[in-house]
Amino acid sequence: MKRHLRKMHNVPTVRRLPDYHALLQERAAAGEQFVSSSYLAEQMGIIPVLVRKDIEVLQVTGTPRIGYPVEPLLRRIEHFLGWGERMDAVLLGVGQVGAAILANRQLATVGLNVVAAFDADPRKISTRIHGVTVLDVAILEDELRKLQVDVAILCVPSLYAQGLTDRLVAAGVGGIWNFTPVRLDVPDQVITQKEDLTTSYALLSARLTRTRAETCAEKVA
Amino acid sequence: MKRHLRKMHNVPTVRRLPDYHALLQERAAAGEQFVSSSYLAEQMGIIPVLVRKDIEVLQVTGTPRIGYPVEPLLRRIEHFLGWGERMDAVLLGVGQVGAAILANRQLATVGLNVVAAFDADPRKISTRIHGVTVLDVAILEDELRKLQVDVAILCVPSLYAQGLTDRLVAAGVGGIWNFTPVRLDVPDQVITQKEDLTTSYALLSARLTRTRAETCAEKVA
Repeated sequence: MKRHLRKMHNVPTVRRLPDYHALLQERAAAGEQFVSSSYLAEQMGIIPVLVRKDIEVLQVTGTPRIGYPVEPLLRRIEHFLGWGERMDAVLLGVGQVGAAILANRQLATVGLNVVAAFDADPRKISTRIHGVTVLDVAILEDELRKLQVDVAILCVPSLYAQGLTDRLVAAGVGGIWNFTPVRLDVPDQVITQKEDLTTSYALLSARLTRTRAETCAEKVA
Repeated sequence: MKRHLRKMHNVPTVRRLPDYHALLQERAAAGEQFVSSSYLAEQMGIIPVLVRKDIEVLQVTGTPRIGYPVEPLLRRIEHFLGWGERMDAVLLGVGQVGAAILANRQLATVGLNVVAAFDADPRKISTRIHGVTVLDVAILEDELRKLQVDVAILCVPSLYAQGLTDRLVAAGVGGIWNFTPVRLDVPDQVITQKEDLTTSYALLSARLTRTRAETCAEKVA
């Protein structure tokens, strides 16, 4: 049992970890052994105190005027995020979004291993897309029994999202990465994470609208 | 000048607004005129006090034991998010991710209007993909002058991300929706928003790893 995993960590911190990781890899590649919180803060566009709080979660100690050790910090982030630990997944729905995920090499490097894809379209079934075989969704349960995956990536049309979720849950899948706009109904022990471009767009649109309004106000003033 | 846009709002609140919107639309479709914060909280999986705080931002007042009026709440969310206000965009890089965005009809319904796409691949240039014409990225500046877009959607390989960003900024584009893994360097007045599957995966992977560890602990105990 890994102690550091017990605590529910702050979601913004977890979201920043991959960016720290990318920055630290750059530093390591440049031959640097230490990095300061002020450097990380500047590169991330956040305040140094927030960087120090994030790194506290990782339990890596810095030295005043020297900084944090780059390699131990990299290893802790990888460990914390479960990177390196392979996560087996199936993908449901090989449309535009599904294909984009299968084509994403970065996800493979951080441990996501898509072992099979499923679709209902006979033109796609039995083909290989970005190296992954597409199976008939009709045999989902049989395949899940054999494959024993950790997570299912859901990229199907909204109409089929809940029905397939019910089948995944009944087959014992513990995590669903949801790329549909549907809020899925699942039992408490199943983890779902929703990726929704409309939600992201809402944030972008609100920020841009605000900025435009401010620019107008300045022009008027 | 719209007053409500001046204040920098809490990002988690803004992120939840599209989900409230979807819930309220369901209520409206069911003929309901009022909705309670406890109903919204239960559906969203958050505590009622957080719902009330979110709705405070929208400046819609509820009535005790009756709830919030559904239609005014819907209109305020749309107004707040700048939905309905059309936002013109260009898309750079019509690979798997770019094509998935062009295929996304939901984004169009909330106001995103992709007027042109750009690519460097001669096989893609002059074709139409999901109704959008693909132009040669070599003529980006000329086209941007004509098109006067609000935002650019960046879906190019990492190698080209910063170079194209510099060109977009020089051409006066005020917002960049960044689907590359690159942290873009832009002037302060330019708004960027990064969508990164690796970052989202980090969150999912950390949550799943923690749950697996807890399940193991329970089995051992």
